[in-house]
Amino acid sequence: MYEGAIQDLIDELGRLPGVGPKSAQRIAFHILQSDKVDVNRLAGALTRVKEQVRFCDTCFNVAESEKCRICRDPRRTDELICVVEEPKDVIAIEKTGEFRGRYHVLGGAINPLDGIGPDQLRIRDLMTRLAGGTVKEIILATDPNTEGEATATYLALLIKPMGLSVTRLASGLPVGGDLEYADEITLGRAFEGRRAV
Amino acid sequence: MYEGAIQDLIDELGRLPGVGPKSAQRIAFHILQSDKVDVNRLAGALTRVKEQVRFCDTCFNVAESEKCRICRDPRRTDELICVVEEPKDVIAIEKTGEFRGRYHVLGGAINPLDGIGPDQLRIRDLMTRLAGGTVKEIILATDPNTEGEATATYLALLIKPMGLSVTRLASGLPVGGDLEYADEITLGRAFEGRRAV
Repeated sequence: MYEGAIQDLIDELGRLPGVGPKSAQRIAFHILQSDKVDVNRLAGALTRVKEQVRFCDTCFNVAESEKCRICRDPRRTDELICVVEEPKDVIAIEKTGEFRGRYHVLGGAINPLDGIGPDQLRIRDLMTRLAGGTVKEIILATDPNTEGEATATYLALLIKPMGLSVTRLASGLPVGGDLEYADEITLGRAFEGRRAV
Repeated sequence: MYEGAIQDLIDELGRLPGVGPKSAQRIAFHILQSDKVDVNRLAGALTRVKEQVRFCDTCFNVAESEKCRICRDPRRTDELICVVEEPKDVIAIEKTGEFRGRYHVLGGAINPLDGIGPDQLRIRDLMTRLAGGTVKEIILATDPNTEGEATATYLALLIKPMGLSVTRLASGLPVGGDLEYADEITLGRAFEGRRAV
């Protein structure tokens, strides 16, 4: 509908996840009215991400060198590995401040419908890490949905015979939530996992 | 929270209108996993908008040369001018296919709280266009909100003494809507503007 460059930008923005046609148009006009310096900074950040960001050789978290910040940290224990699906899960767990071990980022979850089996994930690399003998416990922190549960079950079957302790994050009621608004499955899990007080 | 370039991108994306921290993170990881060609195309579209897009010398719509596509079109009549707030309003009206005259983009609406008075808008330029004598009718198509109504009233007072026909877009019930869900002011306007059938 627009002429040349502004329409190109609207089209490109509209391809981003969660950006619909109206948002794309709104962002494009915001860009048109922004300072050239700010726009160049955004354009530079986009290209730099593709040039500089890579994945950690050990845990496959995002990194800017061979090892990510967490794998480089000497104060963390090598005896605990927390297995997650994506780099953003690492950030979520880091924010809790509860975990002082290392991570292993699978790069997704088993999902046969999307053609993602164990070979498409970093599972072989995880086995190599475990074969080293330093690790004592594996915490399976994949998402509490069908794909995440399937992945956790698969990993547990694979790792348990190695004699390691394998745990899964607790499912239950979210803290600060209302019991009334919890779905049946979550509430059922909360009953199953009830603890003595 | 992330290292270097990916965090820079999340920060930059988070400054765009309508993009919150979660969306910024989601888009950044999408970019990280996209083809380099696609990312460069987006970065290029961003910088090109600032380099190539300008405003039409006549109507102040977005353009890539001195005159926009609409002002260049010889099949449109010069006797009708539709006054709108923003370039996106031009697109909205063009989509109806109902209007074959020219436009005038004010660049906003009168809003004293934001320091936007008549001098911050393209009102002087509109008066110069009208002084030419070709224009017969002015359609005030500013938004049907407080600022848009104030701007329309201001313009009507300015233009009517020139002996031109000044009209305003009809307010009323949206087509395909439910009477029950219309707000009182819209429903009131629909009564005011009722027509013989």
